[in-house]
Amino acid sequence: MNVSHASVHPAEYPPTTDEGGGGGGGGGGGGGGNIEVPRVRMKDFQGMPGTQGGLALRICQFVFAAVGLSIMATTSDFPSVTAFCYLVAATGLQSLWSLSLAIIDIYALLVMRSLQNYRVVTFFTIGDGIASTLTFAAACASAGITVLIDNDLDICSQNHCVQFETATAMAFISWFTTLPSFLFNLWSLASR
Amino acid sequence: MNVSHASVHPAEYPPTTDEGGGGGGGGGGGGGGNIEVPRVRMKDFQGMPGTQGGLALRICQFVFAAVGLSIMATTSDFPSVTAFCYLVAATGLQSLWSLSLAIIDIYALLVMRSLQNYRVVTFFTIGDGIASTLTFAAACASAGITVLIDNDLDICSQNHCVQFETATAMAFISWFTTLPSFLFNLWSLASR
Repeated sequence: MNVSHASVHPAEYPPTTDEGGGGGGGGGGGGGGNIEVPRVRMKDFQGMPGTQGGLALRICQFVFAAVGLSIMATTSDFPSVTAFCYLVAATGLQSLWSLSLAIIDIYALLVMRSLQNYRVVTFFTIGDGIASTLTFAAACASAGITVLIDNDLDICSQNHCVQFETATAMAFISWFTTLPSFLFNLWSLASR
Repeated sequence: MNVSHASVHPAEYPPTTDEGGGGGGGGGGGGGGNIEVPRVRMKDFQGMPGTQGGLALRICQFVFAAVGLSIMATTSDFPSVTAFCYLVAATGLQSLWSLSLAIIDIYALLVMRSLQNYRVVTFFTIGDGIASTLTFAAACASAGITVLIDNDLDICSQNHCVQFETATAMAFISWFTTLPSFLFNLWSLASR
């Protein structure tokens, strides 16, 4: 009972998995099947990794964190306050993280590759969450000390209040630009 | 050309929209159609609003914020430091918010209603985000001041260091229990 009629072929579906490929223009090949199955992949909107908006966010994060770090590190008396040392450490970590991801974004833009892989986005989300939490905590602690020195004790004449306040503001701005990256990544992970 | 044969009926689909209803057992009615379309609704896992896990999270948030508020408010010299006043305000807001949502959760559990409405979850997510950010900022600012008093200046003999540190720790724990509520809500919004 070996039935083998060549007149009826099973329809060839193009492969729907997108794992590991991640490339830009891999959609057009795939045989002569006339049934189009939409490819399952994340939406690639501005602000995500591998887009121009994401690169702009990363550059802003890096610039503000690096400026805050250098302003705080150039004051002579920051090592006497723990919160200011923590601000230097946190903005240093934030600037390194943002610079690394900016380089990855530039590479992805140059070679026209998408970074919308599940594992990559999970890694970026966790890193963004940790970096932004540390930066925000350091900025809040420094703001508490700065307000104490400036408003409560009124001893700005003996301290570098302007530098402390500027570095704290830079750290806050850096956190504020990290937040969209984190939320975009988390949203794209959840809406997958 | 008025063709009207009664032998072929269009299949009656049950309504797929779930907007505004939100009730518990509205699935079984709806005519005699034999095509089952799955209803589009959010998943109701523990930790979400209207579940026992969510209620436990809310009670933890309220208890820790209220304890931190009362410990800080009973010290005599907290109004002299801006960060401590801010901690009192933030934990007060956090405890009010968590108490309100705990009451809503108890009501939802008692009358067996689901709170998985899109607008309700959006409102809860925004509120959780604001409350947790304020509590975390206040806890970090207080921690900066406490570490300055205790470690850097070493003037704990003139200050209520133990109370300050306990109130700060309570605020941190309250933030830590608000975070899952916020992330669960955001995840369920995004994965809708």
